[in-house]
Amino acid sequence: MAYEFKITRRVEFAETDMAGIVHYSNFFRYMEVAEHAFFRSLGFSVVTRQVDPPVGWPRVHAECDYSEPLRFEDEVEVHMLVSRKRSKSLTYLFRFRRVNDQPPVEIARGSLTVVCVTHHGAKMTAATIPKEIADKIEVAPAELLA
Amino acid sequence: MAYEFKITRRVEFAETDMAGIVHYSNFFRYMEVAEHAFFRSLGFSVVTRQVDPPVGWPRVHAECDYSEPLRFEDEVEVHMLVSRKRSKSLTYLFRFRRVNDQPPVEIARGSLTVVCVTHHGAKMTAATIPKEIADKIEVAPAELLA
Amino acid sequence: MAYEFKITRRVEFAETDMAGIVHYSNFFRYMEVAEHAFFRSLGFSVVTRQVDPPVGWPRVHAECDYSEPLRFEDEVEVHMLVSRKRSKSLTYLFRFRRVNDQPPVEIARGSLTVVCVTHHGAKMTAATIPKEIADKIEVAPAELLA
Amino acid sequence: MAYEFKITRRVEFAETDMAGIVHYSNFFRYMEVAEHAFFRSLGFSVVTRQVDPPVGWPRVHAECDYSEPLRFEDEVEVHMLVSRKRSKSLTYLFRFRRVNDQPPVEIARGSLTVVCVTHHGAKMTAATIPKEIADKIEVAPAELLA
Repeated sequence: MAYEFKITRRVEFAETDMAGIVHYSNFFRYMEVAEHAFFRSLGFSVVTRQVDPPVGWPRVHAECDYSEPLRFEDEVEVHMLVSRKRSKSLTYLFRFRRVNDQPPVEIARGSLTVVCVTHHGAKMTAATIPKEIADKIEVAPAELLA
Repeated sequence: MAYEFKITRRVEFAETDMAGIVHYSNFFRYMEVAEHAFFRSLGFSVVTRQVDPPVGWPRVHAECDYSEPLRFEDEVEVHMLVSRKRSKSLTYLFRFRRVNDQPPVEIARGSLTVVCVTHHGAKMTAATIPKEIADKIEVAPAELLA
Repeated sequence: MAYEFKITRRVEFAETDMAGIVHYSNFFRYMEVAEHAFFRSLGFSVVTRQVDPPVGWPRVHAECDYSEPLRFEDEVEVHMLVSRKRSKSLTYLFRFRRVNDQPPVEIARGSLTVVCVTHHGAKMTAATIPKEIADKIEVAPAELLA
Repeated sequence: MAYEFKITRRVEFAETDMAGIVHYSNFFRYMEVAEHAFFRSLGFSVVTRQVDPPVGWPRVHAECDYSEPLRFEDEVEVHMLVSRKRSKSLTYLFRFRRVNDQPPVEIARGSLTVVCVTHHGAKMTAATIPKEIADKIEVAPAELLA
């Protein structure tokens, strides 16, 4: 059972804007990259063709609080934690910090809620999370989510 | 005094992802485009060099709830409303609907909170919203924010 | 028969980078937006399900020469011209200018070559451009391509 | 003296489009990431404040030929080579291949020409590449550029 994953990435030039900092929308891309790496760590892709029928994970809620800006070439750690697990949805918490900050500073904190769906042509229907996936995921301890 | 603005845009190919729908991070770009057009409608740029000293508007909170997907070439209306006005910050509500949906369907609803800042080199400090801007902005009527 | 299309757009904040100018990769997005509007002007989508079998238009070559930077809130005109038409491919020329520059200045010039393909699962095969599309497109006069 | 650099990255979901492949504009972002990592390998940032006066490297030409599509979660190697060195400009060649393809297949090949500039407010002027940078960069052997 897993409840967390960490990735590190270096801020790219194209992710900055004319204010000299990472554009706020890119934090949502960073979150997703951590989520997808978490899925790979469990043996699945987020484009989940390893189950029958295949499932997808559209987002129903996304949010982020920004405390400090990120700049070009900063190394940032994204720490993903499972904060809620329901039969058809998962919620993740994401904590952002610059790798070299001493002491560590939480520069942003985000959250994503995703729903498990099956596809019928272009239409999507909420579905129970397949057992082989659900069995591998648990909610993080409360003290990590505070 | 103004409290709202509407823009319409057509979904671009590069905004879609392999799920065939607009990537969720792009809703945050759409919100910002509406916000910046609102500022222009008041005679200001969001890169606010029309006041002395110049001010900027970094985001401290962003969120979005997604009800329906957007697809390539859909025309989407983003309706921005001022939902809160404080001395140093503004909060906007954003309602997304497809232009041709009958009856209209709210496909997503977002929110942004921005803080007014002045710049000291790379450092930013929260500042009172300049009077010439604050005087032009008011909170939308409660019934529009429901 | 059509050989050109023009679009105008305003530079968005998220399209700039920390150099204060539009990131060079975004010119390729602007080109594509003009191409897709050209297709719509002919009664087709670039996701061409109006023909049987449906066809797609992957890019096999893209290039751009940059003369002047574009900045936030600049209004830019993208003038697309068909510069070559073959049985299975089309090449477009794109001229960029700021709407308010007097005299007009070509700030960038790009080119895209796209191939008509049919899909067989995830595989794509080059295909002759369907007659109903080919009949509507011609190469621009040489003097416009100089 | 250095003339090449290699990076590896995994295709992200947000980099794909509704055709199920990496959007062609993202290859230009990948090129740049390799270029910037090359600069770091020489002890510089591409936002080059380590020389006096600071210099920047705007793009004057960019191009890419696409042979094969890239898909979500593919691992791609970007091999950057210096293909031309002039007093005020550098040209790079970029070869893309999927890490696990056996035999290796060149899925795309790109090129960037950048000019060394100094900044005077918002204006940029071409400048001779500072000696401490020029001394570290050489053109790759012809056989690697073929």
